[in-house]
Amino acid sequence: MIVEMRTGASREEIDSIVQKVKSFGWDVQMNVGTEKTVVAILGSNTGQVSTDIFAVLPGVESVTRIMKPYKLSSREVKAQDSLVSINGIEIGGKRIIVMAGPCAVESEEQLAEVAKVVKAAGASIMRGGAFKPRTSPFGFQGLKKAGLELLAKVKEQFDIPVITEVLDSRDVNMVSEAADILQVGSRNMQNFTLLTAIGKSKRPVVLKRGFSCTVTEWLTAADYLLTEGNNQVILCERGIRTFEDSVRFSLDISSIPVIKKSSHLPVIVDPSHAAGHYSLVPAIAKAAIAAGADGLLIEVHPKPEEALVDGLQSLTPANFAKLMEELRLIAKSVGRYI
Amino acid sequence: MIVEMRTGASREEIDSIVQKVKSFGWDVQMNVGTEKTVVAILGSNTGQVSTDIFAVLPGVESVTRIMKPYKLSSREVKAQDSLVSINGIEIGGKRIIVMAGPCAVESEEQLAEVAKVVKAAGASIMRGGAFKPRTSPFGFQGLKKAGLELLAKVKEQFDIPVITEVLDSRDVNMVSEAADILQVGSRNMQNFTLLTAIGKSKRPVVLKRGFSCTVTEWLTAADYLLTEGNNQVILCERGIRTFEDSVRFSLDISSIPVIKKSSHLPVIVDPSHAAGHYSLVPAIAKAAIAAGADGLLIEVHPKPEEALVDGLQSLTPANFAKLMEELRLIAKSVGRYI
Amino acid sequence: MIVEMRTGASREEIDSIVQKVKSFGWDVQMNVGTEKTVVAILGSNTGQVSTDIFAVLPGVESVTRIMKPYKLSSREVKAQDSLVSINGIEIGGKRIIVMAGPCAVESEEQLAEVAKVVKAAGASIMRGGAFKPRTSPFGFQGLKKAGLELLAKVKEQFDIPVITEVLDSRDVNMVSEAADILQVGSRNMQNFTLLTAIGKSKRPVVLKRGFSCTVTEWLTAADYLLTEGNNQVILCERGIRTFEDSVRFSLDISSIPVIKKSSHLPVIVDPSHAAGHYSLVPAIAKAAIAAGADGLLIEVHPKPEEALVDGLQSLTPANFAKLMEELRLIAKSVGRYI
Amino acid sequence: MIVEMRTGASREEIDSIVQKVKSFGWDVQMNVGTEKTVVAILGSNTGQVSTDIFAVLPGVESVTRIMKPYKLSSREVKAQDSLVSINGIEIGGKRIIVMAGPCAVESEEQLAEVAKVVKAAGASIMRGGAFKPRTSPFGFQGLKKAGLELLAKVKEQFDIPVITEVLDSRDVNMVSEAADILQVGSRNMQNFTLLTAIGKSKRPVVLKRGFSCTVTEWLTAADYLLTEGNNQVILCERGIRTFEDSVRFSLDISSIPVIKKSSHLPVIVDPSHAAGHYSLVPAIAKAAIAAGADGLLIEVHPKPEEALVDGLQSLTPANFAKLMEELRLIAKSVGRYI
Repeated sequence: MIVEMRTGASREEIDSIVQKVKSFGWDVQMNVGTEKTVVAILGSNTGQVSTDIFAVLPGVESVTRIMKPYKLSSREVKAQDSLVSINGIEIGGKRIIVMAGPCAVESEEQLAEVAKVVKAAGASIMRGGAFKPRTSPFGFQGLKKAGLELLAKVKEQFDIPVITEVLDSRDVNMVSEAADILQVGSRNMQNFTLLTAIGKSKRPVVLKRGFSCTVTEWLTAADYLLTEGNNQVILCERGIRTFEDSVRFSLDISSIPVIKKSSHLPVIVDPSHAAGHYSLVPAIAKAAIAAGADGLLIEVHPKPEEALVDGLQSLTPANFAKLMEELRLIAKSVGRYI
Repeated sequence: MIVEMRTGASREEIDSIVQKVKSFGWDVQMNVGTEKTVVAILGSNTGQVSTDIFAVLPGVESVTRIMKPYKLSSREVKAQDSLVSINGIEIGGKRIIVMAGPCAVESEEQLAEVAKVVKAAGASIMRGGAFKPRTSPFGFQGLKKAGLELLAKVKEQFDIPVITEVLDSRDVNMVSEAADILQVGSRNMQNFTLLTAIGKSKRPVVLKRGFSCTVTEWLTAADYLLTEGNNQVILCERGIRTFEDSVRFSLDISSIPVIKKSSHLPVIVDPSHAAGHYSLVPAIAKAAIAAGADGLLIEVHPKPEEALVDGLQSLTPANFAKLMEELRLIAKSVGRYI
Repeated sequence: MIVEMRTGASREEIDSIVQKVKSFGWDVQMNVGTEKTVVAILGSNTGQVSTDIFAVLPGVESVTRIMKPYKLSSREVKAQDSLVSINGIEIGGKRIIVMAGPCAVESEEQLAEVAKVVKAAGASIMRGGAFKPRTSPFGFQGLKKAGLELLAKVKEQFDIPVITEVLDSRDVNMVSEAADILQVGSRNMQNFTLLTAIGKSKRPVVLKRGFSCTVTEWLTAADYLLTEGNNQVILCERGIRTFEDSVRFSLDISSIPVIKKSSHLPVIVDPSHAAGHYSLVPAIAKAAIAAGADGLLIEVHPKPEEALVDGLQSLTPANFAKLMEELRLIAKSVGRYI
Repeated sequence: MIVEMRTGASREEIDSIVQKVKSFGWDVQMNVGTEKTVVAILGSNTGQVSTDIFAVLPGVESVTRIMKPYKLSSREVKAQDSLVSINGIEIGGKRIIVMAGPCAVESEEQLAEVAKVVKAAGASIMRGGAFKPRTSPFGFQGLKKAGLELLAKVKEQFDIPVITEVLDSRDVNMVSEAADILQVGSRNMQNFTLLTAIGKSKRPVVLKRGFSCTVTEWLTAADYLLTEGNNQVILCERGIRTFEDSVRFSLDISSIPVIKKSSHLPVIVDPSHAAGHYSLVPAIAKAAIAAGADGLLIEVHPKPEEALVDGLQSLTPANFAKLMEELRLIAKSVGRYI
């Protein structure tokens, strides 16, 4: 951390900074310039302490963080890529993993039909929401427990792992019984009680990026899971909120190389929630693989025009199968496969 | 809702829209232009249905929502201003209500000292966090239950109502026993299980705006509380995330007149979390009252330089007392009082 | 500037940083931590040099700027508030200056009518656009030279100074003949050839904030004017682009105290372009004065429903007169007058 | 356009809307709902008229635009992809066009060295800035006219077309003599006098997206060029300003399929300015091609550590050559070639 003193800061003010630094067991190095004094704070865990603690002291102009606030998810702590393994399917390796299925579980027929087609097209994991976080209380909130039971049934029948969202820390155990991967939705990325509960559960988890959170905040949220001993963490970029209104969210394609540089965790991309429209999904999905993503989370619905939620962003089975063919070519061009 | 068909949409495509509209019991009016057909959907609750349901149908170019998605929080449902009453203190009336106190409850001494000074300066309600949502798992997470007990004790001793944040739906009852007003933090504005639990509790609640949520989404989240029969809802503007980096969040001053125009709910402003720096708090607080806010939520700490959380944005008791004097003048200039 | 080296950076890499620093005539101070080496660069004009110059060197992890990139507009260079004087009207002093008038000059009658009413209501300066930057080439582009002539005529007749926008560096002289204050629009805040031309002209200038520029970039743009010797610079906050869609732009109320803290230049606020709707203008205008703005720039049109441009955000003469009464009270409550 | 009246709007208010609509020669269709009247305005050029004209009328709640404001750049006006041809090099066809070179022209040696290596690696066009728009007046502003002369010389010597930025409408002719393609920078996307001058010049032009402009505004700006008869317009996505701070700008990958759907103009991508760091350029460049971009604009510098501008985002010749190999594979996987 770098503390910049105001022009004319007094000897006492500077001393009180030094004292505070020492109280954390850290070292200090003074840079007495002609105009300003700058104090460098040296210690291994300065990233985990708020800059406010120094910024509030008298005579301070500003405090700049040098160390990142996240730790366990960083490449500095673990240089090698982490692999997450689900029933023998490895995420984060050479193989691109595609998770596909409907936004919401609606019925056994719907789920079975999707399972069949997405598996045939080459998806490794099926998605389907039983608990649906909806912006309006008047929207369909999901089949909840009944939805979980359908997921468990179809998963068995088609021998395909499933991922589903968990909304409440109280439901972690119940959802874990039905699903192979827990999903933390964008609106819950900073729901720290939920993260802690999932961390303790040690279940594989997909942590979606909060739609207005920085990559740094996202990795810091991942630390909540890792610090509880849950190493099976997969990140999922799903678009951020910007001023652009031609899409629902702007997919932050740069976050993929940034994550790969800063973190050892695997990262997948959800083009469906970003685009908000099925016609834009293929281009974004292809870009994600080209940029280095380890997998995709794609919405597929047998009859999008009858979907209870998010039909507009769902691919038909035929379009999904076509996209998978295109993705195979892209994967190959970057030295990977599906 | 307005459905714009693609140029050259077929008779069958247009008919299928009409059929879908009828299935909701709504009326339709066709606008057959020279280039395009536009279908207007007429019904009283079209705002509560997703536009996707029509956008996904073949031949559709786009669907535009005319009715707002929120309902119970709207002025159209209730024209008159709502008042929320806490121990005889009315929020939403002529009196400006100031809630003040430390970001986090740290000790009985700290709390008692703050209670004394903020009450003396004219604050009506004391704030203090027992459960702290922190972006990093390595940060101070609050005194939790012990903090609630301290709040209850000091509240009794100084005869001042208190507001504190609740993070988890399981804690609603416990927090309600200690606090007069429940606070939903910015990161939980769309935590719908929490909103539903608080809605059922019927306790007065301050709903902070999600830092990346639109006013429309905020009012729709308020509907989650209102639909459970909880009418004691106070909105709180606390800044939104933008590209500007001289403040922690950009306080959206326009949201105040927008809310006053669109909703009957009272709205207060938290200048401390927006600014992130104590030196900016007075200007924002004054602007809020001038713009029509019904109250303020301000962080005050007896010794900001020793605060465990957010000391940088906390006012000292002396600065708070000075600000209260200035606010009284502003309040008077807009025909109100503190 | 603070240069953070990568873990394991070599002796040679660190030396090459030091050499580069010396080539600028600056000093260096080394902070050799247990994990990382951090190099502090000490010099009085490091803010004016790109961080890239060091960030690109081998072994560097990141470079952090401590000094701000702007200089002449900063309080560090000039501690005392700057006053801009137009025909004896001082901007930046105790008096709040209100500039009002139509978005676009349409006719002599329109202009004369506005001049009469805004002067009567207490405005000191009249605004009116002769050159209109329009997002679409099919929109009304202003009366151009004929508009300037009308402005000059009405200004004479009503003895009121005028402000008008200049779009092109070639027009600076021509516009200066008609107008007392030149206005640089939001889309031209970083049109550096225009800024340089206006800087050389030494005419009073209102520099609107780019709707997606930070306060730091805004003050750095002001440096373009100041460096040419033009000290008559007035800043104008007019809203920034965010995700919020209930207003045209989100007025950044915090920018006022931030500017007051960082710069000696006067700052005014344009509530009309931010709001985009006349009903929101009064609340924002009052907030601006309460927050410490030195003036306002408000759109007034005798018949908003017939305005050629931006009628929706224009106040009627009656509403403007009413607002001026309210603003007088607010001004008084913060120790100023109109 | 759809005009939504307020609940309880009077007969006269509705009539005045109809009258206004008729004055434009448009048709109207009334939708008299039980709660509200909605008026649909039907006409072929409603997209080119401001919604304000109706929104300002008494009794109106809101006005929603259905037709897009851009016209000449839209697929509705021209269904077939436009091709731009520069010395026989076609942009917008099956071949991916790579433009590469230094941010700023520094010397003949530098330019010649770059020309040699980028041509050898497969770039078709060389970039190099003679006029540099810099946020600070204290930064290097480019070699200006001398830079143009160097570009012309090296272009001849290496027989490679060049692209360079033009900052001022007065310079269009001079720049056109040296360069094959004019570049409009991000900060000038809405510099309408510059656009008009380039439109009149009929020279091939790359129109960079304003870093805070929507795709709709971008295409509307393109209309400024097209309406003057200049059809040689190439769009260039270069990242938008968001809250994310790990990159300089967030590349909006979705804009590529959105443009391909809405417009006939070719679109290329500048990964260098978006990323701000050379290490992120390859991933973004690959994603752009996978998403359907027609070309790339990449910064390459023989010695990035000595670059006068933007060295941090420049690739070395070796890294550029490596990237070109990877891009060839991606291009092939989407049925194109470089």
